[in-house]
Amino acid sequence: MSQSQPGGTERGTERIEAFSDGVFAIAITLLILDIKLPHLKNSDLLSSLLQLWPAYFAYVLSFVMIGIYWANHHYIFKLFQKTNHALNLLNLLFLLFIAFLPLPTEVLGEYLLDKANQTTAATVYALGLLLPAASWLLMWLYASRGQRLIDRRLEAGYVRRLTLQYLGSVVLYSGAVIISLIDFRWGLGICVGLTLLYLLPPKSPVFSREER
Amino acid sequence: MSQSQPGGTERGTERIEAFSDGVFAIAITLLILDIKLPHLKNSDLLSSLLQLWPAYFAYVLSFVMIGIYWANHHYIFKLFQKTNHALNLLNLLFLLFIAFLPLPTEVLGEYLLDKANQTTAATVYALGLLLPAASWLLMWLYASRGQRLIDRRLEAGYVRRLTLQYLGSVVLYSGAVIISLIDFRWGLGICVGLTLLYLLPPKSPVFSREER
Amino acid sequence: MSQSQPGGTERGTERIEAFSDGVFAIAITLLILDIKLPHLKNSDLLSSLLQLWPAYFAYVLSFVMIGIYWANHHYIFKLFQKTNHALNLLNLLFLLFIAFLPLPTEVLGEYLLDKANQTTAATVYALGLLLPAASWLLMWLYASRGQRLIDRRLEAGYVRRLTLQYLGSVVLYSGAVIISLIDFRWGLGICVGLTLLYLLPPKSPVFSREER
Amino acid sequence: MSQSQPGGTERGTERIEAFSDGVFAIAITLLILDIKLPHLKNSDLLSSLLQLWPAYFAYVLSFVMIGIYWANHHYIFKLFQKTNHALNLLNLLFLLFIAFLPLPTEVLGEYLLDKANQTTAATVYALGLLLPAASWLLMWLYASRGQRLIDRRLEAGYVRRLTLQYLGSVVLYSGAVIISLIDFRWGLGICVGLTLLYLLPPKSPVFSREER
Repeated sequence: MSQSQPGGTERGTERIEAFSDGVFAIAITLLILDIKLPHLKNSDLLSSLLQLWPAYFAYVLSFVMIGIYWANHHYIFKLFQKTNHALNLLNLLFLLFIAFLPLPTEVLGEYLLDKANQTTAATVYALGLLLPAASWLLMWLYASRGQRLIDRRLEAGYVRRLTLQYLGSVVLYSGAVIISLIDFRWGLGICVGLTLLYLLPPKSPVFSREER
Repeated sequence: MSQSQPGGTERGTERIEAFSDGVFAIAITLLILDIKLPHLKNSDLLSSLLQLWPAYFAYVLSFVMIGIYWANHHYIFKLFQKTNHALNLLNLLFLLFIAFLPLPTEVLGEYLLDKANQTTAATVYALGLLLPAASWLLMWLYASRGQRLIDRRLEAGYVRRLTLQYLGSVVLYSGAVIISLIDFRWGLGICVGLTLLYLLPPKSPVFSREER
Repeated sequence: MSQSQPGGTERGTERIEAFSDGVFAIAITLLILDIKLPHLKNSDLLSSLLQLWPAYFAYVLSFVMIGIYWANHHYIFKLFQKTNHALNLLNLLFLLFIAFLPLPTEVLGEYLLDKANQTTAATVYALGLLLPAASWLLMWLYASRGQRLIDRRLEAGYVRRLTLQYLGSVVLYSGAVIISLIDFRWGLGICVGLTLLYLLPPKSPVFSREER
Repeated sequence: MSQSQPGGTERGTERIEAFSDGVFAIAITLLILDIKLPHLKNSDLLSSLLQLWPAYFAYVLSFVMIGIYWANHHYIFKLFQKTNHALNLLNLLFLLFIAFLPLPTEVLGEYLLDKANQTTAATVYALGLLLPAASWLLMWLYASRGQRLIDRRLEAGYVRRLTLQYLGSVVLYSGAVIISLIDFRWGLGICVGLTLLYLLPPKSPVFSREER
């Protein structure tokens, strides 16, 4: 924080990264509150716990998603050389959707096996993943357009590749939302598949010029 | 933290900023717990989720408010050159009201559509926004009066402008509380309008003398 | 963290302070969850909210207590020159009681007006404040005895004064527990009085020798 | 964070440690939410609170376990010289199980005295402790195998001793799971015994070569 100049409107990204990290860490840890233990004494605890499997599935999926976003957030903020008011607001919008994830997670965990509502549940979950992906894309487009905020030494091809990748995510999650309406299994399958894909190691940034 | 001198009673602001950031990040992420999913199996999940729209509205409004306070907190603490016991207590009072926000948010989300209680709900929410605004003003007045704790190079006119701005917020939120009692729609409208206003970029501080 | 030597068993206090700060910030912000909004549609929201006043009272009292402990924790950890395994465990015990505070806070808020249980509620709350005070004293006695971990330049009289002050708190909270059993009003009064006392500014440390 | 090079895929461990610390601090503080106060006005509060003793027991046990993991996490990450994508994912898996602990803690606290379910409850709790221990072992084996990520100056015998210790934990927790199925008291006894064992101070790392 000491590096930022009080006289400027564009500043370093340390502050915003620390705040975002806090929100990531809290949102990821709050997910466990979505698994509601049934409070029925003298019932069969074991079968109750086993019947909660959709909630465990939703917990793991959302936990991994938030963990991946956390890692990627550091990754792209390292490519940003500064931040400004608009990027702060776009980041706040993104965090709003990250902090919102416990709700679709609860919906999926509770209604995945409920025949009357499983289509709604999967669609809502896919929508819950589309929202942070879309605000992420906005954040990236704003920062990278005309090298507004990113490291100017980054190779144009590398920047374009990231743009395509983030755009692709938005397209695929939009697809997952629509397909969920037809068959919730396929919609959820796309969500799981994308999560597994994101577990692959990220490519190193390519710089067109040497660091001095 | 290493810069603070154990022998003094006035210290740097790093500690208090880090603690405040923690409270901001947690309060903003806890807001999602205010959206209570109805636990009715075999009911229509979609219509239940759509009927929760006042809770989503309250979530977004409070999320943005806490996000704005977080940004402004960093902004004015950068103008403070040190902190003392009284400012620490005033900041604690402010955080008490920030951490309290999930309650009026829950009230608004749950009772906005309840004809018998919507006036109360909107008034309580406006009051929930007035309290942090009022303690913020107190904090600023204490720190800026006679340049007690602020950077002495700040231009007097700039300091006065901030005082007027913070005073104006308190007056407008007080108005929102009173108007809510007459028509809750207008009261809420003022709250939303003020939030949109705060999304505008802050003015850069004006220094009367150069930094050496 | 970079200063700590991997080869030693006694280390700097940065790590333990950062972790403790996290627990303080989370515990203080979780207190709001103890105020349970009654979920009765079409009831009188205003009178429901007003009847929650014991919960607001308990919220404010516990919030201020945790805030004071946070400030004092930084204060005494600045007097410690290093930490060791035993101090880490004593600090963990102290944090266990801080993180426990939401429970007695909920008890007080919910049962203060319940004639059959108000004595129990106040006694449990006083006990909830005694436990962190007692573990705090243990931590201080361990660290200060024979200047084990504290700054050796601290004046003996200053160290003795802190010991007496922390011992006094334990005695007074023990008194509050016992007196609550006889008259809960007096027991709570001691708890409130001690909190107000702790709001007074702390004395600056006195060093017997100059810092070089 | 400033030390990490944007051009590399292996980086320092500061980021991952800060995020993990956040999850530890939140998970440990959320444990209190597992103790559910019975909301029965005009009942006997004292006896209700006393009957919650299994919940207090589970709270203390899980609090101490997470506290120990926090300390050990810092301990082994100080032995790591860098991190890579695979270690980040293994650490995320470990955190997933740490953040999951509130659920088995709630199960143990609520069903320990329920004759029909106490065997299940203790087994689930032992399983809840086995999962982080197993992912911890995985993390260590990955990082230490062929000195992939650990400090190369660490003595081979010291590394082997840690491997055996972490393997031993996994074996003992597996034993606790199985024995719980036969007699839940013995299974829980192993869990408590291991926790007490972990409270012993860790051995200092042994370096085969001097630090320059």
